[in-house]
Order: sequence, then C-alpha cells, then structure tokens
Amino acid sequence: MELPKVEGFRFAGMHAGIKKNGRPDLALAVADEPVPTAAVFTRNLVRAAPVDIAAARVRSGRMQAILVNSGNANACTGKEGERAALDACRAVAHALGVDDALVFPASTGVIGQPLPEGVIPSAAPALAGALSAGGAPAFATAILTTDKAEKVAHRAVKVPGGTATVLGVCKGAGMIHPNMATTLGFVFTDARLAPATLRGMLKRGADQTFNRISVDGDTSTNDTLALMASGKVGREVVKPGTPAAAKLERALVEVLEELAVQIVADGEGAEHAVRIEVQGAAKPAHAEAVAKTIATSPLVKTALHGCDPNWGRIVAAAGRAGVPFDPKKVGVRIGDVTVFDAGRPVMDAAVEAAASSVMKNARYAITVKLGAGKAKGHYFTSDLGHEYVRINADYRS
Amino acid sequence: MELPKVEGFRFAGMHAGIKKNGRPDLALAVADEPVPTAAVFTRNLVRAAPVDIAAARVRSGRMQAILVNSGNANACTGKEGERAALDACRAVAHALGVDDALVFPASTGVIGQPLPEGVIPSAAPALAGALSAGGAPAFATAILTTDKAEKVAHRAVKVPGGTATVLGVCKGAGMIHPNMATTLGFVFTDARLAPATLRGMLKRGADQTFNRISVDGDTSTNDTLALMASGKVGREVVKPGTPAAAKLERALVEVLEELAVQIVADGEGAEHAVRIEVQGAAKPAHAEAVAKTIATSPLVKTALHGCDPNWGRIVAAAGRAGVPFDPKKVGVRIGDVTVFDAGRPVMDAAVEAAASSVMKNARYAITVKLGAGKAKGHYFTSDLGHEYVRINADYRS
Repeated sequence: MELPKVEGFRFAGMHAGIKKNGRPDLALAVADEPVPTAAVFTRNLVRAAPVDIAAARVRSGRMQAILVNSGNANACTGKEGERAALDACRAVAHALGVDDALVFPASTGVIGQPLPEGVIPSAAPALAGALSAGGAPAFATAILTTDKAEKVAHRAVKVPGGTATVLGVCKGAGMIHPNMATTLGFVFTDARLAPATLRGMLKRGADQTFNRISVDGDTSTNDTLALMASGKVGREVVKPGTPAAAKLERALVEVLEELAVQIVADGEGAEHAVRIEVQGAAKPAHAEAVAKTIATSPLVKTALHGCDPNWGRIVAAAGRAGVPFDPKKVGVRIGDVTVFDAGRPVMDAAVEAAASSVMKNARYAITVKLGAGKAKGHYFTSDLGHEYVRINADYRS
Repeated sequence: MELPKVEGFRFAGMHAGIKKNGRPDLALAVADEPVPTAAVFTRNLVRAAPVDIAAARVRSGRMQAILVNSGNANACTGKEGERAALDACRAVAHALGVDDALVFPASTGVIGQPLPEGVIPSAAPALAGALSAGGAPAFATAILTTDKAEKVAHRAVKVPGGTATVLGVCKGAGMIHPNMATTLGFVFTDARLAPATLRGMLKRGADQTFNRISVDGDTSTNDTLALMASGKVGREVVKPGTPAAAKLERALVEVLEELAVQIVADGEGAEHAVRIEVQGAAKPAHAEAVAKTIATSPLVKTALHGCDPNWGRIVAAAGRAGVPFDPKKVGVRIGDVTVFDAGRPVMDAAVEAAASSVMKNARYAITVKLGAGKAKGHYFTSDLGHEYVRINADYRS
C-alpha cells in the first residue's frame, strides 16, 4: 500500500500483545509539535474510557499524538479501564518526551474485558522508535479488528503557497464480532488551519458522511473521528470563507465519504453499498429522517440482499419515518430505473429485470422523491444477508 | 378449534378467490344491530384504502359488520383501490340488508396489486349465508396470510347481571412474504359499553400490547385493531371507573397481550418471543424508549437467536436510546440470571451457561435496570435468524 506523506506527521504500527493472533494491535500518529486537532465521538451514553479521556483532552484544540489499540475496546471496564487508558497514554507520552495531556487515546475490540495490564506501557518505547514519515500503512493496519482490509483515502489540495495533503484512515465493519465494536477514523493534513476552523469542517463533514452510514443501526461505545492539521504546508493560516478553505473542506468531505462507504461495503456480510437518496422533502431534516428509516429497515436491507426491487418495502419504510408527505406524489428509482411513480407502481417484467440488474452492482443508488418540497438528504446502507446472521448469531462469544 | 360464543355476533369465513392456493380469504363478523365500536390504525403515512375508509366510518362510534380479505392488501392502489374497497363493502351491506356505512373493511396481503375485480361482490351472498354464532374459527382462519396458525385468545368476565365474553382474533407475522404486510386484530365482547368507554379501553390496551411488539421494526400500511361490544350481556351499561369496567379492561389487556405475543412468536423465522422489561427509569417514556431500542436492535436480535447472553449489545443499545441514565448503575438480568450489575460484567462460565440455558426457552424475559428512577416499560421482540433472511431475501417477489 502506497500512501502520500503528510508533512509534519510520523506514524507507526506494531503487535504489542493485545490480540492473541499476533496481528498488529497498537498504532501511533505523532505531530512534530502540538497541532490543531478536532474530533467527534459516539453519541452513545455508554462510552468507553478512552472516549471520555480523548473528549476531555481535545477541548484544548491542540494534540500531538493519537494512540490507538485494537483487540480491546476498554468499554464497560469501570475505574480500572480509565486507569489503564491513562497509563497507556502516560507511557507513550514519556517515550515521546511530550506532555501526557497531548496524547489522544482510542480503542476498539472486545467490550467488558480489562485491558491486559502493562502491555501498552511495555510496548511504548518500541512503538515510538518505529515512527516514520512513511509509516501510515502500518498505522492503518494496526487499527483494524475484523475488517477485511485497510481503509484509506487521500486528496491533494492546492492552497496559497503549496499543495496540502489530506490523508484519511479508518476501521469499522459494524459491531461485527460478538462484543466487537467501533468505527474509528483519523484524518491528517499538513494544511494550516486554526482549531475552530478544523472543528467546523470536521463536524459538517462527519454529518454528511460518517453520520450517514448504517450497517445495522447500532451505535458503538467507542466511535471516534479525529482530524489533525500540522500546518506545514502553505504561506498563511487558511481562514474560513476563503476559496482555499472551501477546497480543503471539499477534499475532507470526499476523503470522509470514501472512508464511510468503505465501512458500509465492509459491513457484516455485505455485498452491496447502497446510497439512499431522498429528494423533494419540505426540509433537509425530513429528507434525512426518511433516508435513515429506509436505510435501517431490515425488510429493505434483506430486499437489497436478494436484489429484489421491492418498492413496497421502501415506500412503507418512508411512510413510518414520521415526516409529512403525500403518498400520492411519491416516486422511487433504482439506479436509473423508475419502479414507482406518483404513488403508483410502474413495474412490469422488463422494469423488474432492469431494476434487479442494477441491484446486482456492488454500489448503486436508490432515489426516493417525496414531492413535498426541494430539500434533499441521503444515507449509505448495506444489505442484510445470511453472513450477517452467521457472524452475529452463530458465533458464540 | 373451540371458541366461546359472544352473544350478539355471528361470524363466517370462506374462499372467495383472492388467494390462488384455494385457502380461505374472506371473513365477516356481524352484530345483530349497529353496536359500539372502537379502532386504532397504523401510524404509517402510507395507508391502504380500507384503512382510510374504516377510520372515517368508525368515527361515528357504531358499526355493524367487519369485512376482512386476506391475500391482497389493497395498498398503494390509488383511486381504483378505494373504489374496489367501497364496492366490496356495498355488496356485503346489500347481502346483509344493512347500511353501507356500517361495514368496517380491512385487508391484508400483497401491496400494490389491484383487488381482483368482482371477486368479493360475487362472494358476498354466500358469505352472508354462512354466518353463524359458532363461526369464529372460520373467521380466524380466513384472515391469515403466512401465519403458521390461527391466533385467538378469550376471557370470561363477571359483570352485574351476567358473564361477559371477550374474544380476540388476530393475524400477523411481521411483513413476512415480500410485499405481504399487516397486523390485523379484532376483539368482540357482549358486554355493555358506550363507544367512548370502548375507545379509551382499546387505546390504553393497544398501547400496552400491540404497540409494544417488534418483529422487524417495520410498520405496515394496513395495521388495524378493532373492538366491538354487542351489549347483550349485563343489566346496565358499564361505566368507566366502576369495578366491572376495571375487570373488563383487565380482560381486554390480557386478550390483547396474548394475541400480541402470538404474533411475535410467529415472527419471521422466530424461535423465541422475548419480553424486554426496563425498570428504574426516570419516566415511563424513557423506559419505553430503551425497551424499544433494545427490542429492535439487529445485534440484540441475532444474539437472541444464538442464545448468546451478550449483555454488551443490550447495554450498547440502551445507551443509544436517547435517554439519560448513569451507565455505572445499569444492571441486566436474563430470566433470573444477573449478567451485568452496577455497570460491571458479572459473567463467569457458570453464569454464562445459566443465562444461555434461559435463552433456549421459547418465551422468557430480559430485565434491564437503569437505576435512574422508578418508572417501568416493556417491549416484546423475537429473535432474528437465517429463516428471516431466507423469507425476506431469498424469495423474490
């Protein structure tokens, strides 16, 4: 895997001993000095210890290191879990010679089991020693749990005085193994941005991408998405409202969307990543609610699995989204094939065959028109098949 | 099947020709005269034609007949669907010699296909001719679609001047076949109750029972639950607030709960009907929201299928219900086995074996204590297994 370098950052990944299968389980990203950092976290009330710590620390607006372990979520582990997360951060800070409070922790893996004592502190010197400007692939590998492959995306963006890089790395495939959890995403850029600008960009970007994916409607206890900007590229700080800020934000959204769709496509047993696009709503919130209800309907998701252009399930899901519209104006399109129009089915054998053929693609879109206004919204979802049940029911924890 | 008679009602069921497999598909219940009737309907914005007609008619508070067809939902069928439903009612009203507006229609089956023209009107005289006081079993059979068996429940209630009967009949197994839909429930009593009393009882009863079940979180376009009271038994009209009213309401809730649990147990491929009981919430609405989130979580439902006492999924689902509580106070019990206590796992091999053994039962309860107050709430759910996927994904419409 080739990844572009991001000025001002070094990365490492290694096997520390948390995973019993010998795979990499500890990752570190370090900036040359404390740099503007923004993050968004799970909205689940039940949050893992590292999420609480990271959320408190990132309020300062600047971090220097991101420390991630996979194989153990450190969630529902009480006071001991908090102490273990703090110990891990302290050991890495010591190895780096930086202030403790500048280390941003994240964990993913089994819920409710204590972090094996001493494993991360013992590994900290070796981890710090392995850091390199070309180490992003090792970082991307070490954060994985049951993902099928590394998930990365990047863009180059011209800014006054140079070309900035936006590099995104993430993991997640639903709450896949029993007791396994978590979507983690980390984006690094060498552009010059103030913490407040970064925060705004990340919040808007996450809302359009990571907050619009559903594998199974379940929110993990550990979800974390962070953005760090080293400021090594560019003549001046990029101010909000400038063309450079707009270009950087567009690149960020593209990177986040690529990552988010990779998570959906790697969903539990998923064979299809489907964009549910809702148009013609009275308000954006209405469009989003309808898209989300369709994207999380088990009946819709099993129909996606069966490549079944079952507009009845899509329309019925839209109808229970709690959003006002006139059913007589509703239309549904699968790819470019209209299957429901102005509240009436328009299916014949040819239409059904064409729609079903679109649904055999790994990625496609379903468009629902409500006829109630001009607002749009979308959601990314996966299909629900036997593999999902096999992973989640047949395998005993 | 033996069912108690309900004074003042006659029932019939027959094969009219809507279902292609020759099974009964037309059902009729008739009171001796217009009698107090209450009904609640799907909250889905996309409602079938018969739902719109029944909802408008029942506002008068009195109906004389309930006409149900299975095999065709008459939903998303436009103006033609509305005309077909009105024609069916008119033909049956004519055969019975009653006013059109006293016939309450309900349909269940395929969405988006026109009701075959003339089938119900042609069958109306034979249907009316088949009515008998002992015909409830035929009625119960003719409303089924893919249900494994008839769903019935009844109670006898002493009221001043006699013993009233409460007889409930329903159908539903999720939105099971592709494009199949609907939960229908009908309750008949010979007690003397005013329309307003009936309405209050049904609303409260449905809220505790039919509105607390989830097979797949999908709400059909046709859901209907109706209650008719012939007033043939008892010396006087039973007033709200009297002991007789309380006894009748308790019997009604028991009948509705028995019916609702039968629907869950007959859920798509379900092997377990599980009561999710949430205690210790600050408000009843909080308890209900947590119970519903757990009951509809695919991760929880697949764990139920695997008899896996996976408290992590239950706690994570509770945490995303949007309800305030302190995760450190949460406890989870499976049957009588405590698996999570005061925010900490208490699982060892013996506890896990005991909990898993409870989960092998066809019916059991999971109790979640939030430690935030005294309010309670519950939801009934089923497990999600391969059979659900087989029914919904492998079978093409």
